[in-house]
Amino acid sequence: MSSAQKPILAYTGLTPNGFPITIFLEALKSTDPGFDYDYEKIDISTNRQKEPWFIELNPNGRIPVIVDRSRKDFPVFETSAILLYLAQHYDKQYKYWFNPETEPDEYSDLLQWMFFAHGGLGPMQGQLNHFNRYAPDIPYAKKRYLDETKRLYGVLDIRLKDRDFLAGAGRGKYSIADIKTFTWVRMYAFSGIESVDEWPNVKAWLERINTETSVIAGLQVPPRT
Amino acid sequence: MSSAQKPILAYTGLTPNGFPITIFLEALKSTDPGFDYDYEKIDISTNRQKEPWFIELNPNGRIPVIVDRSRKDFPVFETSAILLYLAQHYDKQYKYWFNPETEPDEYSDLLQWMFFAHGGLGPMQGQLNHFNRYAPDIPYAKKRYLDETKRLYGVLDIRLKDRDFLAGAGRGKYSIADIKTFTWVRMYAFSGIESVDEWPNVKAWLERINTETSVIAGLQVPPRT
Repeated sequence: MSSAQKPILAYTGLTPNGFPITIFLEALKSTDPGFDYDYEKIDISTNRQKEPWFIELNPNGRIPVIVDRSRKDFPVFETSAILLYLAQHYDKQYKYWFNPETEPDEYSDLLQWMFFAHGGLGPMQGQLNHFNRYAPDIPYAKKRYLDETKRLYGVLDIRLKDRDFLAGAGRGKYSIADIKTFTWVRMYAFSGIESVDEWPNVKAWLERINTETSVIAGLQVPPRT
Repeated sequence: MSSAQKPILAYTGLTPNGFPITIFLEALKSTDPGFDYDYEKIDISTNRQKEPWFIELNPNGRIPVIVDRSRKDFPVFETSAILLYLAQHYDKQYKYWFNPETEPDEYSDLLQWMFFAHGGLGPMQGQLNHFNRYAPDIPYAKKRYLDETKRLYGVLDIRLKDRDFLAGAGRGKYSIADIKTFTWVRMYAFSGIESVDEWPNVKAWLERINTETSVIAGLQVPPRT
């Protein structure tokens, strides 16, 4: 890579899977003035993510994907795998994650909550959005995914009792587990859940994450216009 | 822990999320004669996984969960987080995963495919099973999840072209990425997919994994009777 080139190129979009990447990239940028990234907005409505050049990067044909120019254009797909890749290579001070060797329990907690969000909350709230907004009216499916999404918010509420963040000792530390989870929970209203008053710990956590500088910046990328 | 006590206690069941744990535990046992584990079968039909003692271990109320007696009863939930935990603490020779420091690209590939299975294949084939076998007849939902599961098998087929296993240099190495993915794909017929002939690379991979000693042993735990 030329000295002027930014190490990371992110192919992303304005989705709950895309935002964790730009939020974390902004966090890394704010921590290390030498770090920067480029992004390319993929308009999924035109199916660019199904074109052969993109399938080469991610056979699943989904955003986000990153390419690491400083490591021979190594490509990474799946939101959570990208977060862990960026953490390993660009957050060597463990500001937003935990040292697997010296903090193995905190590191495992982080993985547990990332996988919870990646395999539970994301897919289920995604199905809720589909049946609420895009599919024909099927009350059984709407109820199934609404109930399950609410149940999963309840699980987060248990975890966040007496905590500020999902992983880390004591009240926890703002980490990529929060970043991964937040981008789904924040869109509760879009998903047809009127309020999060029912889950006071989730509500407080949401307000806390909403004020993080990296979150505010990351949610602006790519720009809407 | 007393010297006679086995380090890992696994709460598990006969499900595609439970089997990866017992398969990997059997693999670890076969590699290290000093390693062993206990299991306790959780009958999910009686909702034991929703009882307070279990919610203490996993607020999501789902199997599998492990408790590590050799590390102060540290609990771990989410199938993929358990696999990575067991790898870090009990596979220090990197027989079934990759060294994050010295093999960072192979390690990232492993994570990418684990997250693909954890957030894509598992949840989608799980919904297919629900609508095919347990829900009222809703053709739209059946088709949605059948099409998506088949599409995901197609993604695996792309990855497995000229490879034996999902992650690792060259033709790859049998790893926890294969273990995590296999337990879903193996039940294609249960999910209403007649055959895997359409995806020859997946078919060959399935036959390959099926013959692994640890797979044969792990699928017997807990015993069916």
